[in-house]
Amino acid sequence: MKVNNQHYRSVWIEGTTVHLIEQNLLPFKFQIFKAKKYTDTCRAIKEMVTRGAGAIGGAAAFAMAQAAYEANADNYKNFINEARNTIESTRPTAYDLFYSVEAVYKAALKSPESAMQKAQELADANAAAGRAIGENGNKILSNNVNILTHCNAGWLAFVDYGSALAPVYVAHEQGKNVFVYADETRPRSQGARLTAWELHNQEIPHAIIADNAAASLMQQGKIDVLITGADRIAANGDVANKIGTLEKAIVAKYYGISFYVTAPISTIDPGLPNGKKINIEERSADEVHYATGPDAENKLHTIRLSNPGSEAINPAFDVTPASLVKGIITEKGIIEPNKKSILALLTT
Amino acid sequence: MKVNNQHYRSVWIEGTTVHLIEQNLLPFKFQIFKAKKYTDTCRAIKEMVTRGAGAIGGAAAFAMAQAAYEANADNYKNFINEARNTIESTRPTAYDLFYSVEAVYKAALKSPESAMQKAQELADANAAAGRAIGENGNKILSNNVNILTHCNAGWLAFVDYGSALAPVYVAHEQGKNVFVYADETRPRSQGARLTAWELHNQEIPHAIIADNAAASLMQQGKIDVLITGADRIAANGDVANKIGTLEKAIVAKYYGISFYVTAPISTIDPGLPNGKKINIEERSADEVHYATGPDAENKLHTIRLSNPGSEAINPAFDVTPASLVKGIITEKGIIEPNKKSILALLTT
Repeated sequence: MKVNNQHYRSVWIEGTTVHLIEQNLLPFKFQIFKAKKYTDTCRAIKEMVTRGAGAIGGAAAFAMAQAAYEANADNYKNFINEARNTIESTRPTAYDLFYSVEAVYKAALKSPESAMQKAQELADANAAAGRAIGENGNKILSNNVNILTHCNAGWLAFVDYGSALAPVYVAHEQGKNVFVYADETRPRSQGARLTAWELHNQEIPHAIIADNAAASLMQQGKIDVLITGADRIAANGDVANKIGTLEKAIVAKYYGISFYVTAPISTIDPGLPNGKKINIEERSADEVHYATGPDAENKLHTIRLSNPGSEAINPAFDVTPASLVKGIITEKGIIEPNKKSILALLTT
Repeated sequence: MKVNNQHYRSVWIEGTTVHLIEQNLLPFKFQIFKAKKYTDTCRAIKEMVTRGAGAIGGAAAFAMAQAAYEANADNYKNFINEARNTIESTRPTAYDLFYSVEAVYKAALKSPESAMQKAQELADANAAAGRAIGENGNKILSNNVNILTHCNAGWLAFVDYGSALAPVYVAHEQGKNVFVYADETRPRSQGARLTAWELHNQEIPHAIIADNAAASLMQQGKIDVLITGADRIAANGDVANKIGTLEKAIVAKYYGISFYVTAPISTIDPGLPNGKKINIEERSADEVHYATGPDAENKLHTIRLSNPGSEAINPAFDVTPASLVKGIITEKGIIEPNKKSILALLTT
């Protein structure tokens, strides 16, 4: 998608140098991180230069291809084996990473060229899935629609297009008037920082709101539909996503507003019977206590937001029951959040 | 209540000098603002040295008494008339302020001593109402209770005790184990800053949570009751309070968790038939975009939190329908949120 009216993906390769948008600096500075060696790409993944399942998968695929080019003929297999382990250890819970690395590794056993081709294929497939989610999701968006989204499930989290924002991009491209309310998404503020940055670059009308304001806007009839991404979807349609998604889903239900979850099929875990089995990751209390940002002179500071001496509890995700979800928008179409529809989708 | 193990009210008078806890500096610095003249007290109210209906009412009452002592005998009435206008113009929407100023003004027409006595009476009455709300609210708190509260309706917002936190203080005093989850309450973070500060000083176990985390904690059975204050209560029991209260109330209802509103009777507006007539105050977008706090060297900075160039919408309050409220805890007892109970309470 666009940055300063130029098209970018979140991750791409030129020659054997991986290029990544430096997401740690967004929205305050736009900078490209250039990773010449596969270990540089690993460091970028580890230090969250890139984040989001799809973008991590793309970066990891390219890292595996880089490693194949770096390996000497006499030690080729040992080198790529070691590289695979190194890449896989960067973000050990990212499912897309393992899937991508395995596919490129197998191609690398043939040749570096095969590895590069496979990595590019995977990156293109991720972007294409985002585009297809956008086209399917566009069908539920009428003209003059007001959308609420939570966290960032935009193109920065994928190779391109994204999941929750992809329908917005397609609708906007087709000339529909769309307005997006972006939940700030405390404590890491991905909504206020990344979603707002994406929408601003794409020139899509939007406003950031404190997470507290969503119910009041729904009560006033200002929101027509709630759309989010997903971190993991169980076989029964329960959805794990960023903390606060459950709260928005309950409030949307109360006001009769449809909640759509968007995700590539790879996010569905058919081995997980329901959301109760999903552990809620507890993150550092410092995310609640501190924030970093620029002052008026653009100098970055980290400040305390809360009472010194008080504890904070910081669950990173929550699980929304399928009963609160109207539909799941995938690259293969929109399905109802139940076991039958999900199994049918996975077997087509 | 306690600060560093010493008892304080949010506002009090020594001789004719009004003392106020400087709330703009909390929780990072505890400092007493001393207002020697009534105009100093006016400035303190205007610049939000003190905030919250009860605390503002107390400060305004003392300011009126100060003016009576400052007036010369030959120009007494003109002086106190002018002072009354000045005091009333500090925070023109604060109902308690007008009520208190009028009562002290009438006493001042007799003598400065009468004015001072009336001001002290009003301050004592506000503290006593908080204590009574605490004792009534304590009845619904069992041992080992986990409470969620939103924003700050503690003693800082009143002369003492507060509304939502008063039951917590009484329960704790009586030896009950209580645990308070304090919603951060973006965008002004009164929960993370003021509520957490109060609880920390009172040595009451608590944790700050991002506003997004409440639903997940309720889903996990970690919250037994939701208690908040109120800015205004309509005759039918609809409640205007800090933005986000509605969202918590809906989620609490979904999980079958009781929501109690606490307020002195003066918060009930019998002339307002329901909450639909309440205008939602829209505050500056800068409250969403910026935050101020100390760095590691305790130097204050104001930083940008959100994407530069994006808009923000910042409603300050929302209206929770009476159907989501289990009961209203007042200094005269706990009532159901309906017209009949409210009228009966007001006429006893």
